[in-house]
Amino acid sequence: MLRLRSGGFWCAAPARPGCLGLLAGLRRAPGASSLHASAGELQGEPDRYGGVSVRLGPLERLDAAAFQRRLQAAIQQWRSEGRVAVWLHIPILQSRFIAPAASLGFCFHHAESNSSTLTLWLGEGPSRLPGYATHQVGVAGAVFDESTRKILVVQDRNKLKNMWKFPGGLSEPGEDIGDTAVREVFEETGIKAEFRSLLSIRQQHTNPGAFGKSDMYIICRLKPHSFTINFCQHECLRCEWMDLKDLIRTENTTPITSRVARLLLYGHREGFDKIDLSMEELPAVYTGLFYKLYHKELPENYKIMTGID
Amino acid sequence: MLRLRSGGFWCAAPARPGCLGLLAGLRRAPGASSLHASAGELQGEPDRYGGVSVRLGPLERLDAAAFQRRLQAAIQQWRSEGRVAVWLHIPILQSRFIAPAASLGFCFHHAESNSSTLTLWLGEGPSRLPGYATHQVGVAGAVFDESTRKILVVQDRNKLKNMWKFPGGLSEPGEDIGDTAVREVFEETGIKAEFRSLLSIRQQHTNPGAFGKSDMYIICRLKPHSFTINFCQHECLRCEWMDLKDLIRTENTTPITSRVARLLLYGHREGFDKIDLSMEELPAVYTGLFYKLYHKELPENYKIMTGID
Repeated sequence: MLRLRSGGFWCAAPARPGCLGLLAGLRRAPGASSLHASAGELQGEPDRYGGVSVRLGPLERLDAAAFQRRLQAAIQQWRSEGRVAVWLHIPILQSRFIAPAASLGFCFHHAESNSSTLTLWLGEGPSRLPGYATHQVGVAGAVFDESTRKILVVQDRNKLKNMWKFPGGLSEPGEDIGDTAVREVFEETGIKAEFRSLLSIRQQHTNPGAFGKSDMYIICRLKPHSFTINFCQHECLRCEWMDLKDLIRTENTTPITSRVARLLLYGHREGFDKIDLSMEELPAVYTGLFYKLYHKELPENYKIMTGID
Repeated sequence: MLRLRSGGFWCAAPARPGCLGLLAGLRRAPGASSLHASAGELQGEPDRYGGVSVRLGPLERLDAAAFQRRLQAAIQQWRSEGRVAVWLHIPILQSRFIAPAASLGFCFHHAESNSSTLTLWLGEGPSRLPGYATHQVGVAGAVFDESTRKILVVQDRNKLKNMWKFPGGLSEPGEDIGDTAVREVFEETGIKAEFRSLLSIRQQHTNPGAFGKSDMYIICRLKPHSFTINFCQHECLRCEWMDLKDLIRTENTTPITSRVARLLLYGHREGFDKIDLSMEELPAVYTGLFYKLYHKELPENYKIMTGID
């Protein structure tokens, strides 16, 4: 669908019947209009997607009732101009303006740290505004020592069933998958290791440990650089270098750990290129940022291929 | 690290020096205490992680100043009991309580639709409360017709550079990766297709189109069930069945599309098992929920293996 951004980008997301409304809105609102309220205190900045953003200053002195009247007048104005959405950015100490906005139909889009963002959809049909982040990302490290065929496993102290699993945990904001794996392995077990590949991805929804959001859990293959275990007593009940075949044999493990153990044995015997998604860093076309891309390694002749038969 | 949950789960996340504080907190606060404010209006429910949750009712009648005094007194009480965190859940129409809480040190943890959640860390060291969702998830479908060696590609109408790419977009909340791919392909191009495998994952941070959050972009291999293109004129400038080798040859494409095209050619020639991460649905050990797991397909003898030499 076509979705709108606030000061951002078109975002290719589901195309629904409503997608007409947007272009109509854009045509009616060529992007020049804005509302400067009488005291200059309520100011809307149009965006190029037919929406308008209002940023309240930390020193905004209006009382809640006066704000509501001005906001209501402004919404009428924006609606008459064909604006399709209003984004309202409110510093936490100005949160007295939230309830008045809610009574005019605004809802929370998201809030973090010291500010919240509310939205009101003015366009036709259901809102086509993009949602906020939907997933938390957890990463586990399967640290496998090829020379001894041993794998690093832990038992969580705080789970009901003490099953063997790979050390891991949630990614910090902005952290790369491989970095989370290396950090978590070290913090839980004291083992230093190096990212080699991505092995498996799990997606799970309505996770009670994710505030009702979805969970993406990624297992990476790591190569150990140290071997002396010094595990976190608060997180782990046990931590061991276990023979890979013992991990495959044991019933005291999770289905995902068991599958990855068999995958590792397959890779150990037949070559890790059979199971690895390798990583490569590339520049993004539109933003100039870099991203990390994971997929099965291509044989050399396919890497340089430009369409040969 | 060990992180705390509100009414949720222990969450294996980074173990830092602070991880001592939590167990100390738990020992001092065995889980029975709660605060029932004089009028029964401010009530804290202890959780099993040493924290306490306060849920304001939609009919809460306290004024902001009275609320702040009660909250301050309650915080003193919880601190003396060794509680390590306070979670404050506020309905949007009661948002007049947010600023008073913020002036006592609370910050937004998240907000969605009609309520916000604020937190205050009372434990030792920096907060070890788990964060909110950090990633949006986008999915593209590489719809490849093996019999004609043609691949379905589009040019976005709204991007600055009109490059050939695979149709795709953001996952809806709670939507499986494969379902997003199938839905997006249909909505953008009118082509019906079936999920076959996961091919590639891209992670990118501080994405301006993701409200500063991270972006996980996944490319799936899809098998077409229909061939007549009826593309969304609002989203796409062009849509074609292109010969896979032409997509590999063209410079008018993104690096990720180009790599996946070469990956598909490799799979087409050598077998898709060389490039596919196949999907399997499994039950979660702790929650009873189901999840979808993606990894390289195991050969049959490894699937049934239980530790044979």
